Amino acid sequence: MPQFLDASAPDFEERFTALLSAKREDSPDVDATVARIIDDVRNRGDAAVIELTSKFDRLELTPETLAFTAAEVDAAIEGVPGEERQALELAADRIRAYHERQMPQDQEWTDETGATLGWRWSAVSAAGLYVPGGLASYPSSVLMNAIPAKVAGVGRLAVAVPTPDGQVNPLVLLAARISGVDEIYRIGGAQAIAALAYGTRTIAPVDKITGPGNAFVAAAKRRVFGKVGIDMIAGPSEILVIADKDNDPDWIALDLLSQAEHDESAQSILITDDAGFGRAVAQAVDKRLETLERRAIAGASWRDFGAVITVRDLDEAAALSNRIAPEHLELCVADPVGLGAKTIHAGAIFMGQYTPEAIGDYVGGPNHVLPTARSARFSSGLSVMDFLKRTTLSRMTPEALRAIGPAAECLAKSESLEAHGLSVRARLDRLNG
Amino acid sequence: MPQFLDASAPDFEERFTALLSAKREDSPDVDATVARIIDDVRNRGDAAVIELTSKFDRLELTPETLAFTAAEVDAAIEGVPGEERQALELAADRIRAYHERQMPQDQEWTDETGATLGWRWSAVSAAGLYVPGGLASYPSSVLMNAIPAKVAGVGRLAVAVPTPDGQVNPLVLLAARISGVDEIYRIGGAQAIAALAYGTRTIAPVDKITGPGNAFVAAAKRRVFGKVGIDMIAGPSEILVIADKDNDPDWIALDLLSQAEHDESAQSILITDDAGFGRAVAQAVDKRLETLERRAIAGASWRDFGAVITVRDLDEAAALSNRIAPEHLELCVADPVGLGAKTIHAGAIFMGQYTPEAIGDYVGGPNHVLPTARSARFSSGLSVMDFLKRTTLSRMTPEALRAIGPAAECLAKSESLEAHGLSVRARLDRLNG
Repeated sequence: MPQFLDASAPDFEERFTALLSAKREDSPDVDATVARIIDDVRNRGDAAVIELTSKFDRLELTPETLAFTAAEVDAAIEGVPGEERQALELAADRIRAYHERQMPQDQEWTDETGATLGWRWSAVSAAGLYVPGGLASYPSSVLMNAIPAKVAGVGRLAVAVPTPDGQVNPLVLLAARISGVDEIYRIGGAQAIAALAYGTRTIAPVDKITGPGNAFVAAAKRRVFGKVGIDMIAGPSEILVIADKDNDPDWIALDLLSQAEHDESAQSILITDDAGFGRAVAQAVDKRLETLERRAIAGASWRDFGAVITVRDLDEAAALSNRIAPEHLELCVADPVGLGAKTIHAGAIFMGQYTPEAIGDYVGGPNHVLPTARSARFSSGLSVMDFLKRTTLSRMTPEALRAIGPAAECLAKSESLEAHGLSVRARLDRLNG
Repeated sequence: MPQFLDASAPDFEERFTALLSAKREDSPDVDATVARIIDDVRNRGDAAVIELTSKFDRLELTPETLAFTAAEVDAAIEGVPGEERQALELAADRIRAYHERQMPQDQEWTDETGATLGWRWSAVSAAGLYVPGGLASYPSSVLMNAIPAKVAGVGRLAVAVPTPDGQVNPLVLLAARISGVDEIYRIGGAQAIAALAYGTRTIAPVDKITGPGNAFVAAAKRRVFGKVGIDMIAGPSEILVIADKDNDPDWIALDLLSQAEHDESAQSILITDDAGFGRAVAQAVDKRLETLERRAIAGASWRDFGAVITVRDLDEAAALSNRIAPEHLELCVADPVGLGAKTIHAGAIFMGQYTPEAIGDYVGGPNHVLPTARSARFSSGLSVMDFLKRTTLSRMTPEALRAIGPAAECLAKSESLEAHGLSVRARLDRLNG
C-alpha cells in the first residue's frame, strides 16, 4: 500500500515533509576501495586495468583487446533484429534533432566605449561515456549521452562498458555505432573511470566523463572530478503525475509503475483533485502488479515510497509539485500548458494524456538523463551544454581604456591589489602622456 | 627566478609537462571538522551558528542580530568615498549589461509528427553568496556573483560574510546593496554554508550557493553539494600572456604580477616568440618586485611557479596554450583575433595590449569567476546559467503517439522494462481500437 495523503488534513504538512525527506537510498561506503583502484590505475596503467578486469569481470584482456575492433562491433550488431535497429535509429534521429536546437550562439558586440566584448562556445576535446554492464545496460542511455556530445562537437568520444564473462549487449554496441562513438573499451567500475580520467598507454585521457553507474562508478566520478568534468551523480528515479478524474486510471497506473519498475528505491507519486480517482488508480496499480514482470521491484517501490495525494484544486497541486521538484512530471489535466506554467521546478514535463513518460525515455527527443532527489530546484538534465564551455572575450581600445580604466584602478587600490592598478595606470599614463 | 623554457630544446616536453602538473596548493584536510560543524548546525540551527561565530569570529550574536538591518548597511556605506562608489556603480552597470546578454531563450516547436517539443528556463528560487572576511573580502567578487544571480531572476539572494571582531568592509556592503542582495548575514566558515544549505529558524535555506572561501568553506560546499547546487571549487589564480616583441616589457610584467600578487600559489606564464623580449619582461618583473606592496607574495609566486617560454612561432604558442587551458589568457600580438581563434581552451581571453587582465577583474563586463587548474578544458566561468535551470517539455498528439509510440514500446521491451512498454501500448490500443 502506498501512502494516501489529503492536503486538507491537519497532519498533511508533517506527512508531506516526511515524504519529501524520506531517505530512499543507502550508498555503501566504497570510497577507500575506489581510492586504491584509482591510485593503482594511475601508477600501473593498462596492467592495473587488465588485472582488475580479470578480477571483477572474469575476463582476460591484453592491451590489444581492451578496445572492441570495428569488426567485432560489426559481428555483434549483425544479429540485431530489424525492428530494434529501426527503433534505435528513430530514437537517435529524434534525440539528435532535439539537441541540435540546443546549440548556443556565440556573441560579440562593441559597446559605447568602443570596447569589443563577447563570448565563444567550444566543445570539450574528448569525452568518456560510462555504460553499465548487465541488467542496467541500456542502449537508450548510450544514445542520450553520446548524441549530445557529438552534436556539441566533441572530437573524440570513448565508451567504457564492462563485459562480465565476455557478455555484451549488442544493442549497446549498435547504439554506440549509431551515435558516432569513436572507441569502445571492455572495462568497467572505478578502474574504467580512472583510465578515462588519467589515461593509460592504450587509453588516452578524456576531459569529461558522463553516464550512470553503480556505487563504485559514482564514487570514482566524485574522486576524479576536478581532473575532469563529470555530469551529475544521479539518484533513484522519480515521477510525479498530476491527474484529474478525466483520465483512465489504468494509464496513470502504468505511468506510475514505469518508474517503480526501475528500482526499489524509485518513487512514484500521484496528485489528484479527486479522491475517488486516486483510489481507482491505486486499485489499477494493484491489478497490474499481479502480472507485471518486474512486480517484485515495482511493488516494493510503490509500497515503500509511493503516494497518492488528494488536493483541493490544481493550484495546490502545482505548489506541492514545486516543493517536490520532480525528475519527471506528467500533467494529465484539461489544460496542461496552463498548469505547466505554474510548475516551475521539474526536470522534464510531459503534457496531456497521450504523453506517457516512457515516450521521453526513448523517442520523444528531450534527454532522459534528468535531475533527481529534488535537484531540479537548481540543475538541469543532460544537454549539449554539458559538452561545451564558454570563453569570454574582451578587447579594449585606447578610448575604452581611458573611459573605464580609472574605475578599475580605483577598485584595485581599494582591494590592496597594487599591481592590478599599476597594469592599468602604466597604460593610461602612456595614452595620456 | 622563474623557469625559462625553450620549446625547441630537447628537454622541453619533459619540463613543460612538469610545469603543467606542478602541485601548487596543499589543501589541509579539514573534512572531519567541517562534517561536525554541518551536523551541529543541522541539529541546533541558530544556536550552533551563534556559538561557532563567537568561537571563530569573536562576535556575540543573537537570532535578531544575525542579519544586518537596512539601517546598519546605510550607516556602514555612508562613509564610502564618492570615487569608490562611482567605480563600483560603473563596474556593476557593465557587469549587468554583459550578463543580460547571456539570458538564454525558451523554445517550443511542433515537429513533423505533430508532437510539441521544447524547453523552458527558470531561475533558482533562492541563492546564497559566500563572501570571505578579512583580506580576501573583495567587493568586486560580490558584484561578479550577485549580479548574474539577479539578472537570472533569483528571487531571494542572501549573502554570508564573516565579520571577525565585528569588522566589516563597507565596500562589500555597498556592493551587495548595488547588486540588489536581499539579506546579509554576519556569519562565515562552514557554519555559514550549513546554515544556507539546511536553513535555521532565522535563515531560510537556499537552493544554490556560490562564492569563494577558505579550505573550510570549500570543504563545506563539497559536502552540501547535492542538497543544494554549488559553483566550482576555485583553485589559485593563473594567467598566461602570449606576447610578441612589440610590447612594453613593463606592461607585460605588471600583468604577470597582477596574478602573482593574489597568492603565493598563483601562476603567471609568459609565452613569446622572442627570447630577448622574454628576458626583458623577466627583468621588468624583478624591477617591479623591488617596490611592489605585495612583493613577498608576488615574488614567491613568480619564483616558484612563474615561467617564460620561448616558442618558434605563435602557432606553437597557441598549441601550448591549449594544453595549459589557462584561466586568464592575454593575447598581446599584432593579430589577437586570429590567434584567439586558435586558443580554444581558456576561461577568458583579453585581446591586444590595451586590455590588461585587471580590466576584466573589475569593469570589463565579463565575469571574473573563471575555471582554474586546467578546468577550462571542460568548464566555464560563472554566468547567468549558474542560476538558471532548464525544464524540457513534450506533448504528444494521438497522431504523434501512433507515429513514434511503437518504437518506444520496442525499445522498452528490449530493455526488459515492461511497464514502460505497456504505458505506451495501452494508449495505442485505445487509439487504434
